[in-house]
Amino acid sequence: MKQKQNFSQLLNPRSIAVIGASGTKGKVGNMIANNITSHKFGGDVFFVNPKRSKILGKKSYASLSDIGQKVDCTVVVVPGKFVEDVIREGADVCKNFVVISAGFGETGMDGHNREMSLNALAQEKDINILGPNCLGFLTPDISLNASFAEGLPVIGRIAVISQSGALAVAIMDKAREENIGFSSVVSIGNKMQIGAAELIEYFRKDKNTDVIALYLEGVARGELFLSAIASAVADGKKVIVLKAGKTQEAQEAIALHTGSLAGSDDIFSAALDKVGAMRAESMSDFFALVRFAQQYKNAVSAPAGIGIVTNAGGPGVLATDAVASEENLKMSKLTDKTKDVLTKKLPSAASVHNPVDLLGDAMFDRYEIGIQKMVSDETVDIILVLLTPQDQTPVDDIAQLLVDMQKKTKKLVIASFIGGERVRGAIDLLNSGGVLHFVSPRSALSAAGDFVGKRTVYPITKKTNVKERVEKAQKIIQKAQERESLYFEECKHIAKMYELPVSRFWDVTGGFDAKSKIIYPCVVKVDNPNVLHKTDRGGVILPIKNLRELDGARKILLNRFKEGGTRVIAQPMLKIKTELIIGLKRDPVFGIVIVAGLGGIYTEVFKRVNFYIAPLSMREIKHTLKTGSIAFLFDGTRGIESYNVDSIAHIIYNMALMGSENPQITAVDINPLLVYNDDTKDVAVDFKIIL
Amino acid sequence: MKQKQNFSQLLNPRSIAVIGASGTKGKVGNMIANNITSHKFGGDVFFVNPKRSKILGKKSYASLSDIGQKVDCTVVVVPGKFVEDVIREGADVCKNFVVISAGFGETGMDGHNREMSLNALAQEKDINILGPNCLGFLTPDISLNASFAEGLPVIGRIAVISQSGALAVAIMDKAREENIGFSSVVSIGNKMQIGAAELIEYFRKDKNTDVIALYLEGVARGELFLSAIASAVADGKKVIVLKAGKTQEAQEAIALHTGSLAGSDDIFSAALDKVGAMRAESMSDFFALVRFAQQYKNAVSAPAGIGIVTNAGGPGVLATDAVASEENLKMSKLTDKTKDVLTKKLPSAASVHNPVDLLGDAMFDRYEIGIQKMVSDETVDIILVLLTPQDQTPVDDIAQLLVDMQKKTKKLVIASFIGGERVRGAIDLLNSGGVLHFVSPRSALSAAGDFVGKRTVYPITKKTNVKERVEKAQKIIQKAQERESLYFEECKHIAKMYELPVSRFWDVTGGFDAKSKIIYPCVVKVDNPNVLHKTDRGGVILPIKNLRELDGARKILLNRFKEGGTRVIAQPMLKIKTELIIGLKRDPVFGIVIVAGLGGIYTEVFKRVNFYIAPLSMREIKHTLKTGSIAFLFDGTRGIESYNVDSIAHIIYNMALMGSENPQITAVDINPLLVYNDDTKDVAVDFKIIL
Repeated sequence: MKQKQNFSQLLNPRSIAVIGASGTKGKVGNMIANNITSHKFGGDVFFVNPKRSKILGKKSYASLSDIGQKVDCTVVVVPGKFVEDVIREGADVCKNFVVISAGFGETGMDGHNREMSLNALAQEKDINILGPNCLGFLTPDISLNASFAEGLPVIGRIAVISQSGALAVAIMDKAREENIGFSSVVSIGNKMQIGAAELIEYFRKDKNTDVIALYLEGVARGELFLSAIASAVADGKKVIVLKAGKTQEAQEAIALHTGSLAGSDDIFSAALDKVGAMRAESMSDFFALVRFAQQYKNAVSAPAGIGIVTNAGGPGVLATDAVASEENLKMSKLTDKTKDVLTKKLPSAASVHNPVDLLGDAMFDRYEIGIQKMVSDETVDIILVLLTPQDQTPVDDIAQLLVDMQKKTKKLVIASFIGGERVRGAIDLLNSGGVLHFVSPRSALSAAGDFVGKRTVYPITKKTNVKERVEKAQKIIQKAQERESLYFEECKHIAKMYELPVSRFWDVTGGFDAKSKIIYPCVVKVDNPNVLHKTDRGGVILPIKNLRELDGARKILLNRFKEGGTRVIAQPMLKIKTELIIGLKRDPVFGIVIVAGLGGIYTEVFKRVNFYIAPLSMREIKHTLKTGSIAFLFDGTRGIESYNVDSIAHIIYNMALMGSENPQITAVDINPLLVYNDDTKDVAVDFKIIL
Repeated sequence: MKQKQNFSQLLNPRSIAVIGASGTKGKVGNMIANNITSHKFGGDVFFVNPKRSKILGKKSYASLSDIGQKVDCTVVVVPGKFVEDVIREGADVCKNFVVISAGFGETGMDGHNREMSLNALAQEKDINILGPNCLGFLTPDISLNASFAEGLPVIGRIAVISQSGALAVAIMDKAREENIGFSSVVSIGNKMQIGAAELIEYFRKDKNTDVIALYLEGVARGELFLSAIASAVADGKKVIVLKAGKTQEAQEAIALHTGSLAGSDDIFSAALDKVGAMRAESMSDFFALVRFAQQYKNAVSAPAGIGIVTNAGGPGVLATDAVASEENLKMSKLTDKTKDVLTKKLPSAASVHNPVDLLGDAMFDRYEIGIQKMVSDETVDIILVLLTPQDQTPVDDIAQLLVDMQKKTKKLVIASFIGGERVRGAIDLLNSGGVLHFVSPRSALSAAGDFVGKRTVYPITKKTNVKERVEKAQKIIQKAQERESLYFEECKHIAKMYELPVSRFWDVTGGFDAKSKIIYPCVVKVDNPNVLHKTDRGGVILPIKNLRELDGARKILLNRFKEGGTRVIAQPMLKIKTELIIGLKRDPVFGIVIVAGLGGIYTEVFKRVNFYIAPLSMREIKHTLKTGSIAFLFDGTRGIESYNVDSIAHIIYNMALMGSENPQITAVDINPLLVYNDDTKDVAVDFKIIL
């Protein structure tokens, strides 16, 4: 990260210049000049355009240095090829530039070189450059629109960072309708120098920002990105990420089994989970989460209790169904006190159990008592108010009631008024009054569930190298440098250093003496660094019941795998209870990722795996094991004795450590890891280290 | 079903009477009288109320027979206890009644008896009664609002059948906003006599109805309901069902393993699938499906090709992600011809691959050429147009373009204009012009995916009893009548009659002679009709390697299970490749349901099962096996040889047959069924028949 990396001059400038400002309608330089001057921005504004003397009634300067004073921020709108020159010219006058101009990395080789060169200039002159190829930014708080999108959003406490300018425009338009306000909206374009991580770090410290909402198409430096989010979340900011490109990035060809289980998008999700960010699944989800985050300061611990008030049974039942399908929500069991009061105050045909059915002819008073009781009932965290517009229903009054109630309670009041024209006015009332409204109970609850989340943030721990161990491991690895992978014996040596339990074996390549106490029945396997899928290639023979069979199998394998370096090993046949698969891969963005889950023949059918992004702590690993895809192994229900979570967590932890201490290791695969829910010790039957 | 069951007089009457009509504002009898007369209903209208001479300026009759002429349809709004009397009085004058009045089955014992008695009257007099406890109905086509909901919906080709009156009101209100028109809206209330099945059957033949949309809270007679839907779908009607109560119905206590895998809601979904109905997951989904069905007459075969046109890359990528997550949709690979034209006509920075990115500064012309090419490209079935409102974007013109294009093409044009105020007018234009608009690309595609579906309707085949077989099976069952379940030997006998393969066994209860060639290793099991979970209770001993061990095990089991009737059996130990679990249960609504899926220790963790609702054909079973939860066993990919789909389908078919021919069987459980993907024959290791 750059040293000066303080963007307050950039995004909250007291003076701003536009190089390439124009008086000609339709030109981007005109749009920006207009946008800066047509709101109430109170700072100095300078237009730079050597071909004009006046623009929009203001003096036009020949160059940045011609202005004759320091400028906090400069927007550059000249053609791409001139950008570097004008910035170099003004580098002493201004340290913060926004490059709107396109024609850089997004346009092929020439553009790429131009961007490299611009970046070098930024380093050399110690200046910040937002963009290039971006929309600019808007800071409503100081009435500054330094972008070519029209208008100025409402002031609010949400910072938007968008990799797409077009989407930033749509977000601002939608926000106006939904009463969402912003501290800043920043378009990051090509992210040459200032990307998501840098801006998250900036907004973390920004006292006007509570929520950081990002639209991203990709992330370059994963660790930086994650640690910025983790710090922001730890400081109480909410971080929401909408990322496109789930299906875009083609899966690389993968040598190992675990590799194929980890799509880059799954890893992205796991990474966001790790640092406590919320991931939006769609545009609507993004807006819903932003509205929740804007509205709702208090943290709710999952599962959150939902209390439902409705004037129609059907939607109440549909909402109950929707609660059941949200992991982070549960239906509140209303207290007897609540039910007693409701029984007294509501008609006898009403239901006083959750969902509370006020009946179709409910007027203001029944809604009032219903919501009041939800507010006072400690089992309720979120109150969902449903309404169908019957002829007698005072729809607008009830909307106003919700607005008033929300002001009085810290609990979240959300609403779904089901209908069209009859509820339209009420929905506007709710939106402007700060009550979240959703078109259906399910969408309300789905957003609430995403928002509540289970967000435990684990500190990004530092690595601890054990010098002696590393030296020993490196010795083995360096000897194997020319090969694709290690021999089983080498794997077992290294595994032992990292306390990874691997099955015993006997090297029987050159025969064996009677003294080597081989245990029968055993299994005989080929061991060759170039043979990764030995079962598929006929490299495993079992069961072997005696010395004669062993020798036969040995000869068969040596004959079958004539490539150089073939060894033959024997292993005892172990009892199988449950098979796991645990592997390490290096993700280009996030680095070391451990994939761990259920093994066996249907591994890829079930994909019961989780992803663990290094660096890891034991606490984090155990939490994921106990709540993730194989949680059923540890909950002791369904008549299955609990497996040993500590032992499995240790293996994950140590595999990550092994990867981080030995950078030549590109992948590791334990398949299967036999695990037990009795006293038997967990053990890796096959263990591959790929270089 | 009643014989006359012709509801055209009921829902399309030429004359209508209201018993309990009232001139007093706020009374339901007044609302209904008002609603009938305030629209342009052209038929005769009669008010009946002995206490008044005039109501709303019209003559009031003392009774129905007092009118002096036949009446097609009568709405009854008198208090519940008088309903039967007034209907009896008028039963010769009118054969179709709508009972709005409450106070029947929904209110306890008295009401229940009142409803029974009313039902008997309906039978006796051969009259139709809609309700009781309903909102009434609306038939816009004849300008008739015979309900107490205000207003009259637009005329359209959708029939709504709602078990909730309140929800029907909300649906009509929402429909107005979304330009949805109705042939009829019918509230079925207590469904005493006329339920979903009867009305589906009616609307199937109604020439004004294309789509039948239902909101249900429960279904009573499953077979009738399903066959009505199947017939309607076969006749080209679209059927959409929103059902509440997924989590409502508590799971009954269940003796057998398979039973716990089948929730009643899963069975409901499977039943709808079987007959080609679409199931809506939420209110929004319901409206989306209704709009699709209204708009889109042609059937699209899944997977439907999606072509996307956008002026912003981000939403295009998000939409591509959403397509990937919809089973029934795929991204079209545009033809070279399409791409050539687009390359010529669009700027070089545009993307001519799907999603086609017109760029942020796209005006009308680029959208026009983009959409035109999607229309002419044969790989595209559904065109999704995305728009973000940039300053220069002619939003309304593009909306109009879509409306015009939709009129010219049979392909479905759907849109998501992302924004707020700037797109609001355009969205109204789209809605009224017949182009479906969704707030986000994901919601558009999710609805499209649900709509496209894979709807193969299988004829409901008739059962074929084989008399001789039934007699033999019944003999065994009747002998066991006093017991909870059958002995293994009895199960195996019956199984054989139905060609269900069961493992061989030896009864070793009383010892065994040397001649019975028991194969070692074998397993020894308790066999007692009262011991259902023998493994849990220590009733299985293995492996048994010789005669001595066998005798020991026999004695242990006889000692352990001292309850009467304990037998001990031995079975050979079979090689395990893949374990399935197949069971039969009787659903209170849909009758015989076969549950079949993956077995083994994690059966309930994975719940890889499907439900097969009888009556079944082999074709239907094989289709479900090959596309359902264990399809991976049959696709021959992932390096797994395909399993024998015919053999497994036969077992499912024959188990259903066994259940239908032997009504005393309440449940069957094969657990495990060992299946193989080599020449080994599939075989049931354990087989339980519960009476």
